[in-house]
Amino acid sequence: MQANAIPAEAQRCIDECLDCYQTCFTTAMARCLPGAGKPTPGAHLGLMLNCAELCRTTAEFMVSGSTLHPRVCAACAEVCAACADACEGTGDMDECARTCRRCAESCRAMAASAGSAQGFSGSQQQNSDAPVKMPT
Amino acid sequence: MQANAIPAEAQRCIDECLDCYQTCFTTAMARCLPGAGKPTPGAHLGLMLNCAELCRTTAEFMVSGSTLHPRVCAACAEVCAACADACEGTGDMDECARTCRRCAESCRAMAASAGSAQGFSGSQQQNSDAPVKMPT
Amino acid sequence: MQANAIPAEAQRCIDECLDCYQTCFTTAMARCLPGAGKPTPGAHLGLMLNCAELCRTTAEFMVSGSTLHPRVCAACAEVCAACADACEGTGDMDECARTCRRCAESCRAMAASAGSAQGFSGSQQQNSDAPVKMPT
Amino acid sequence: MQANAIPAEAQRCIDECLDCYQTCFTTAMARCLPGAGKPTPGAHLGLMLNCAELCRTTAEFMVSGSTLHPRVCAACAEVCAACADACEGTGDMDECARTCRRCAESCRAMAASAGSAQGFSGSQQQNSDAPVKMPT
Repeated sequence: MQANAIPAEAQRCIDECLDCYQTCFTTAMARCLPGAGKPTPGAHLGLMLNCAELCRTTAEFMVSGSTLHPRVCAACAEVCAACADACEGTGDMDECARTCRRCAESCRAMAASAGSAQGFSGSQQQNSDAPVKMPT
Repeated sequence: MQANAIPAEAQRCIDECLDCYQTCFTTAMARCLPGAGKPTPGAHLGLMLNCAELCRTTAEFMVSGSTLHPRVCAACAEVCAACADACEGTGDMDECARTCRRCAESCRAMAASAGSAQGFSGSQQQNSDAPVKMPT
Repeated sequence: MQANAIPAEAQRCIDECLDCYQTCFTTAMARCLPGAGKPTPGAHLGLMLNCAELCRTTAEFMVSGSTLHPRVCAACAEVCAACADACEGTGDMDECARTCRRCAESCRAMAASAGSAQGFSGSQQQNSDAPVKMPT
Repeated sequence: MQANAIPAEAQRCIDECLDCYQTCFTTAMARCLPGAGKPTPGAHLGLMLNCAELCRTTAEFMVSGSTLHPRVCAACAEVCAACADACEGTGDMDECARTCRRCAESCRAMAASAGSAQGFSGSQQQNSDAPVKMPT
């Protein structure tokens, strides 16, 4: 993804979120659908689909340079952690568990660092007509 | 939408979220694209698209009976409130502002009431194999 | 949804698509997840999720006034018809089957009528800076 | 993305579609929003957002092993080609144009090769309870 104005930490988090979207959705389809592997409880399958969508949405907030991304990253971190827990419990979804764990940590860091990221957090709330400029 | 096992308050919030998704996306396309109306700052347009996606994702968490919905509803409430503020500032996006405001209030109520909603919040975190049952 | 410049037939199709998105996703979560009802083959559950996403995407093409909507509507009509067939085969998913059938018919009509809808189809391909104006 | 049962050609197309989703959305936010670069006609911006969503949806059909993927790939190929044309016309969106062009070609190939891909195309329409198995 071309995103030259996005700070490195945000770009890493975007990449983790999109990786988590893909891994959760793919694992859900390849491993968790009825008949596709070991039986998966419905709530776990639902959680994987929800996690996929929230990760993707969180990435879009960061790509858009939204000042609201810390709030969404914080929620995403919790959902990813819960999904990692559920995947670890199965014994054979280690890659999905690891991906969710990495995304949770990255989102948590983005949520925590937001207070000091003036450039990155200065765009959307001001409704400025200026381009979204984020320091690298 | 057929959703007979979803509590009435959650169903109302799902409906508000999907209405907000549609209204934000439609308004963005019909009123805010370059050339489609009064000039809209890029950050406002980005916020409307982000808000639309988060509202839809939040609805999906509730439709899925996820125990994590309060966290996501809380984040959605903030984003919708910010979008309502931005739309009110334009002077001619009153319908979108009202829809965002209603959705923000509904999401805030869902986030706050979650503590006592045992039945609705008991399904996904347990990874139970039982169907998602929510009291009406 | 505020969409005053969209022709009535397109608006009906948008509404059918969004209804089909909601009904397919909700039915998948409430009826088809493992443990949530009668066993559903994984391929049927995957089809319902795919159908939901394509319906939503198709609605977004029409909301955006895209000249490419007939192509996407035609694909959506086929997917909705396949989903309706699969749902009818279960014996207890009649509402979802009917919703998919209605959406398939509406999308097929939109795909077929596109040739003569000059105003509606004249906007995106020209990359015009003018607002998307669609005759009612 | 872990997807060991998906044929190599389909996996490449999935990767191209997800790359196109990211590139179109990111470029739209970073380059095409009002104030974020050279003025972009609203129809072009709408097309990029539509293209992003259709690419992502098309990837999901293939990830799910849907037999309906050729129909959706064919529509996606047309939309990506139109988006590539529009981006080429601007003179400074070469990366997005190239990404859309690659995705269009990959989707076109997937749509054309579907007739002979028995294994890949045998799963969803049969509503089989068996896992989606795709030859590599």
